[in-house]
Amino acid sequence: MYTIHSLIPQKEMRFMEQVFKYVDRMSTRYIDELARLCSMRSVKGDENGLSNARRMIKEKLDGMGFSPEEYGKADEASIVFGRRTIDKKKLVLFYNHYDIVPEGNENAWIAPPFTLTERGERLYARGVSDNKGALMARLQAIEAILAVKGSLPAGVAFLFDGDEETGSITLSRMVEEEAETVRKITDADLCLWENGRTLPDGSPEAAFGVRSTLTVTLKVKSSNGEEHGRMGAELPNAAWRLVWALATLKDINENILIDGFYDDVAHPTQADIDVLQNYPYDENGMLKRKEISEFLLGLSGLELKKKIFLQPSLNINGIESGEPWKGFRHIIPNEASARFSVILVPYQKADDILLKIRKHLEANGFADIEVNADAEGFPYVLRLIRHGEMC
Amino acid sequence: MYTIHSLIPQKEMRFMEQVFKYVDRMSTRYIDELARLCSMRSVKGDENGLSNARRMIKEKLDGMGFSPEEYGKADEASIVFGRRTIDKKKLVLFYNHYDIVPEGNENAWIAPPFTLTERGERLYARGVSDNKGALMARLQAIEAILAVKGSLPAGVAFLFDGDEETGSITLSRMVEEEAETVRKITDADLCLWENGRTLPDGSPEAAFGVRSTLTVTLKVKSSNGEEHGRMGAELPNAAWRLVWALATLKDINENILIDGFYDDVAHPTQADIDVLQNYPYDENGMLKRKEISEFLLGLSGLELKKKIFLQPSLNINGIESGEPWKGFRHIIPNEASARFSVILVPYQKADDILLKIRKHLEANGFADIEVNADAEGFPYVLRLIRHGEMC
Repeated sequence: MYTIHSLIPQKEMRFMEQVFKYVDRMSTRYIDELARLCSMRSVKGDENGLSNARRMIKEKLDGMGFSPEEYGKADEASIVFGRRTIDKKKLVLFYNHYDIVPEGNENAWIAPPFTLTERGERLYARGVSDNKGALMARLQAIEAILAVKGSLPAGVAFLFDGDEETGSITLSRMVEEEAETVRKITDADLCLWENGRTLPDGSPEAAFGVRSTLTVTLKVKSSNGEEHGRMGAELPNAAWRLVWALATLKDINENILIDGFYDDVAHPTQADIDVLQNYPYDENGMLKRKEISEFLLGLSGLELKKKIFLQPSLNINGIESGEPWKGFRHIIPNEASARFSVILVPYQKADDILLKIRKHLEANGFADIEVNADAEGFPYVLRLIRHGEMC
Repeated sequence: MYTIHSLIPQKEMRFMEQVFKYVDRMSTRYIDELARLCSMRSVKGDENGLSNARRMIKEKLDGMGFSPEEYGKADEASIVFGRRTIDKKKLVLFYNHYDIVPEGNENAWIAPPFTLTERGERLYARGVSDNKGALMARLQAIEAILAVKGSLPAGVAFLFDGDEETGSITLSRMVEEEAETVRKITDADLCLWENGRTLPDGSPEAAFGVRSTLTVTLKVKSSNGEEHGRMGAELPNAAWRLVWALATLKDINENILIDGFYDDVAHPTQADIDVLQNYPYDENGMLKRKEISEFLLGLSGLELKKKIFLQPSLNINGIESGEPWKGFRHIIPNEASARFSVILVPYQKADDILLKIRKHLEANGFADIEVNADAEGFPYVLRLIRHGEMC
């Protein structure tokens, strides 16, 4: 049985009850359908897994009268799009993706990653959470509404991305090269993003704006080869240069030291504060889950939420030098690299921040460091809407 | 033909000429012998390669009347020792090692690593330079003297280490646990270390003291698992903690910032300066070989040599966090580690420096970082001797 949440107005409850009863009756079939989608290894590079998943989704959309089409035609990563519009009604767009991250070390799985497995009250498989579960649930929800009522209360469109896990390259390319097509397939009054999470108490989670990511790679090459470790007094050491360069970017108190980095960060408005005050964040749950005693800088409550949602951050994702995982090598490494991501908030622009990072490194004596970056997406704040405003 | 260097006094020239002529006549056999030793993969973990090399060396020593014995009996890494003494004559001890570093990626070799190959005027094989070439050349030199003269002008002993490339663990253990045995097999008037290098002009290189190494491993664990990269505003990042900790150890101008680190470093004496003034160091050759435009801090001449030979250094050997070599993972890493070596000069004590490093990290807010260390050897300045002083 599904909980019908108190957010739904009383007048619509009867209809929704019928829909949920229908879903309950169909639950075995719906879970089987999800299991089939999860059995497909739709991982970047696995052309078979991706095209099987794409075909299954297209067939489903077709059966629901959504006239699916493929866009972007970037071979294995095509976008699947389908729409059912209703005259003079607003349009809801669902964004999901059918690609998933690889299963990694298969020995680390306690059940086969591509077999949907029930444990406790949950269903497990690689990619079921991100994003096949939500993808299939949305299709099935619309299907259930159609089955109960024979029509939809608003126009509905589905856009299924095929390379979200590797940066939505196809969609990004289309934004540049096929702007009109992108406008056509994303022209909606409301877009619901890939997940609809619920909090531990069952209430739906709403996202407070979407931050974006600038991913930067630093590479240092300090000479043409490794040398014996005793030569550190005279020869440059790539690992040291990388460490020093990184340490100029952010200090131990989480202050990002890049000149002008915070220039475009908006001061929080009273409306922001009002939203954040009541915005749920399960501090104790997170601390317990991560086994840490406190959040960075000892923050909690509103100050923590302001930090998380309104402030940018700069986070090392990985560092590599000297290949220590191959065993101890008493060397002066001549190569070192690091990757970090900058989480940007609204009004910050990835290209501008990248330029500031380059200038900062040069000004601090690190002109020898190669800087490469992927500037992905753009930070955005959603307009808050009230239930029922759409239809 | 071998160059007889002008360092040898005229009165001994005739004898030495005979020895060199003998070596020339034997050169094919001597090179074959070296090739056989180089064909043995005497790498840590390769019990077969190590025991074959050990057996070959013992047989050679036996044939030369050096009554070889094994010591340390640390299974595959035993020490081979042999001696021929002469009443009232001083004793020269040769230290060498028969273990070598692994061949690494075999595809990167232009000739098979365990086949001695002649190219130009050089012989190539894994381990021929470090240390099988010098090891065999010394045995063959003594053999040649015995062949020409029938006796030796001084006592000679050979000590062959079996795990030098991995820290001479067996010998270190014996120093602790079998001090009397170590005293017995190292009791000599002069010890010649593993190599006898020559400079490009053919003159023999003398080492100006022996520095020692303190190897330190830093490990950071910031939480119980990786998290998505967007959570960098609130969750601790092990890579950042490691970077910040390392950056407190040494600044961009190569100043080691550990409190008291330089306390025991001796000021250079006039004698030191006199030696260093004339001490050869091929700056241009090194710069060209490493493809760099200058040495650290732009040093050259006496200042560079003072830095290299009289000042300690602190050198990162490797850093690891986030496993970037497994592909891009947009994470907050919860683990990070680094290894660095401290090259110590006379009067600095490894244990003292390690204590200072621990105190420094704690004082700078890095008590969460796990510090482990191998304190190896001890820095030493050799007494200069003149040719002929031994016999």
